[in-house]
Amino acid sequence: VAYQGERGAYGEKAIRHWFSGDVKALPVPEFPNVFEAVLEGRAAFGIVPIENSLTGSIHQNYDLLLQYPDIRIVGEQKIRIEHNLITLPQAKVEDIRRVYSHPQGLAQCSRFLDEHPQWERVAFYDTAGAARFVAEKASPENAAIASAEAAAVYGLSVLRQGLETNVQNYTRFFVIAREADTPAATAPREKGKASLSFSVADQPGALFKALQVLADQGLNMKKLESRPILGKPWQYLFYIDVDLPADPAVLERCVEKLSAVTEDLRVLGTYRAG
Amino acid sequence: VAYQGERGAYGEKAIRHWFSGDVKALPVPEFPNVFEAVLEGRAAFGIVPIENSLTGSIHQNYDLLLQYPDIRIVGEQKIRIEHNLITLPQAKVEDIRRVYSHPQGLAQCSRFLDEHPQWERVAFYDTAGAARFVAEKASPENAAIASAEAAAVYGLSVLRQGLETNVQNYTRFFVIAREADTPAATAPREKGKASLSFSVADQPGALFKALQVLADQGLNMKKLESRPILGKPWQYLFYIDVDLPADPAVLERCVEKLSAVTEDLRVLGTYRAG
Repeated sequence: VAYQGERGAYGEKAIRHWFSGDVKALPVPEFPNVFEAVLEGRAAFGIVPIENSLTGSIHQNYDLLLQYPDIRIVGEQKIRIEHNLITLPQAKVEDIRRVYSHPQGLAQCSRFLDEHPQWERVAFYDTAGAARFVAEKASPENAAIASAEAAAVYGLSVLRQGLETNVQNYTRFFVIAREADTPAATAPREKGKASLSFSVADQPGALFKALQVLADQGLNMKKLESRPILGKPWQYLFYIDVDLPADPAVLERCVEKLSAVTEDLRVLGTYRAG
Repeated sequence: VAYQGERGAYGEKAIRHWFSGDVKALPVPEFPNVFEAVLEGRAAFGIVPIENSLTGSIHQNYDLLLQYPDIRIVGEQKIRIEHNLITLPQAKVEDIRRVYSHPQGLAQCSRFLDEHPQWERVAFYDTAGAARFVAEKASPENAAIASAEAAAVYGLSVLRQGLETNVQNYTRFFVIAREADTPAATAPREKGKASLSFSVADQPGALFKALQVLADQGLNMKKLESRPILGKPWQYLFYIDVDLPADPAVLERCVEKLSAVTEDLRVLGTYRAG
């Protein structure tokens, strides 16, 4: 299963939650590499973050879902993001001079860091990469803010747990696979969700008409996201997640009616709610 | 008029387009400083980018509009973003070794830059700041990708115009002012727009009901954006722009009906379409 980041990244944690048993996690440097690894068969699945409960959607991955039409969403996994202060096993809080993490990791732990104004905060490209850096430098003056899993991977210790100012910090991941490898009947019998994308004509009420189709069919809209269409300023592509009823015919009917009032309609995947 | 960035930034260009005659542009380092400058009376107005036609919404400024409830949107200005290769006046294309710009400026000119693979691309925090840096270093080996205005401000020359791969590159700005300074009757008689924000209860069809109010009142929705609500994972605040009819009573009626089916409803401003 391909994921973006270093060993011990939150993407790897999401893989351990979604896949039971013995699964091999394949780290790749950038999000497009996750899609490519799946498309080229180097990975059977990929996992990409799509949304964080504090910072919002990860737009690059919405855009990639459209750029790779042979990839489908086959699952959803939400994980709690818990930030920890991690150091060399023998280090103490008094030793720390510098704290390394992704800028969002530092920002999300600002209340804790404000209690230690003498520590230098150093932005890093990746939380797990910050942990690896602390392990490699092997100085008790360095600490990282990262997951407990990253501490375990790099032989470091968790000195303080749960540093985040707002504990309602969750990231939602999509599990992706090749369309060719996806059995047509993957829509689950219960707790099913579908992700759709479409654009609408630039005329009054066009988006409303599309949403009316969903409401008429009794589909509950869970999330609506808009992205600009390149080359068409102030026109948008919409991404919508809906809860699916047990009857699979409802989605079919909905897609048929939607295609009459929208453009570029795509079903990005049907899957069991995470 | 406060704006974020260095002298010659696109925000300053937007100010020159919106305000006629003699206006003093006040550069500040970060977006929150624009809101603070207006709130504290150091600037009568501020201008902030809200959306780019290639990269999408600037979410930080949507969030700031909510964090500063005493600030209202009073105008809208769209400007074309035209990237230029700018150098010292005596420099030639053959002299160039390094090109400085904001990462988005470099990415948006990738087709042009790919024709010069020997040039090193150096990311800078700001396009206008890159121009200032080129002027200060005074070496013909350095070039910046920035606006023609930035070239003029720092005494540099435009060596190549219109480098962007996709010319449909526009940024939309909001002009903001203190609510206390905003006459109640600012809704324009024609080409009026309003920006609203609200959340809805976490139950089936709740967002649809809110949008139905707009449709029933004949208000054309121009843009819909969602942002996470901190502390309430997977619940969203919605931002909506609508076209206003000439009759000001329609918006009043709409707000009254919306407040019955939404939570935290706010009218962020009414203004003339840019």
